[in-house]
Amino acid sequence: MTAGPIEFFFDFSSPYGYLAAHRIEEVGEAFGRKVLWRPILLGAVFKATGQTPLVSQPLRGPYHKHDLLRTARRLKLPFCFPADFPMATIAAARAFYALEAQAPQDAKKLALALFDAAFAQGINISTRESVLDVAEKAGLDPAAVAAGIEDGGVKQRLKDETDGAIARNIFGSPFFVVDGEMFWGNDRIPDLKDWLATGGW
Amino acid sequence: MTAGPIEFFFDFSSPYGYLAAHRIEEVGEAFGRKVLWRPILLGAVFKATGQTPLVSQPLRGPYHKHDLLRTARRLKLPFCFPADFPMATIAAARAFYALEAQAPQDAKKLALALFDAAFAQGINISTRESVLDVAEKAGLDPAAVAAGIEDGGVKQRLKDETDGAIARNIFGSPFFVVDGEMFWGNDRIPDLKDWLATGGW
Repeated sequence: MTAGPIEFFFDFSSPYGYLAAHRIEEVGEAFGRKVLWRPILLGAVFKATGQTPLVSQPLRGPYHKHDLLRTARRLKLPFCFPADFPMATIAAARAFYALEAQAPQDAKKLALALFDAAFAQGINISTRESVLDVAEKAGLDPAAVAAGIEDGGVKQRLKDETDGAIARNIFGSPFFVVDGEMFWGNDRIPDLKDWLATGGW
Repeated sequence: MTAGPIEFFFDFSSPYGYLAAHRIEEVGEAFGRKVLWRPILLGAVFKATGQTPLVSQPLRGPYHKHDLLRTARRLKLPFCFPADFPMATIAAARAFYALEAQAPQDAKKLALALFDAAFAQGINISTRESVLDVAEKAGLDPAAVAAGIEDGGVKQRLKDETDGAIARNIFGSPFFVVDGEMFWGNDRIPDLKDWLATGGW
């Protein structure tokens, strides 16, 4: 029996998702698990939970802004807040699924490049043009990405992934599922690792 | 210069607060820091943040119920949800401050006994009578606690502690502050320890 994958759900507007994106492949490698990257649209999730973006919440927002900065320092990852934060991520997520159907590794490469553009360089990634620009700079074919963003099947795929995540009670970003066990948050990666190492508690 | 204390904010209705209450004194001892226990009323905090009790939220509730059970198993702490959850905690919190003014160690003893009654034994701790019963079983003087619960100064103290916490952007339970640095959640105790060990990141 092959060990199942780690599912990694995120929204490209999620700063903790950015941090986790730089950590999760290492976890997969350490425990012999593939990592399935699954961008979703948190806006639809928040409609189901009644939540709002974390950093714009009273009291909670300032704490998490500070926590993101200190956590990024600890992980030695560059970090900034894009000026247009939180941003629309529908084009970014569609671009991911468009590429994934052809070459999963290219899709992950694009995803990291998009996260880095937003949270390391402060670049607006909310438009189709900016996503194509990031793809091109990452050495990917912007024409293929452009065609994918407009593809009806890709649009439906993103909707289905988001609806499917909500149906499975996935309510935030980053969110990990392995062997049916769910872990919410970048700060739960140590728990995820311990679960994989020990077989669970 | 003496190293400052760890402030430990919590509500007696907080199951993650219960888990943290069994862990935080060990952290204080390991790093030579006193721990100041500070019960507050999350109801007032939630009015400021627009949040609701975690376990009653759609999608998020089921995750956290499961997470509490697995985390308690991992920490080897007994755990159950009281039938009347979430419960009123004004009598419990007042009892704490009433005792603390006389004997801080007794107040901590009562706090742990109240947490254990609720989350290890499933006892309703929402009434004055139940709080006195827990105090008596913990070997504390119920008459002193009873007088304290009705004391005007104690009532004001709880209100001031809650308002003061909100003014400092403390928005959940458990919540830790040390040297001005804030950590939210039982799952951030490892971060708190690392911060104390390293001097911060």
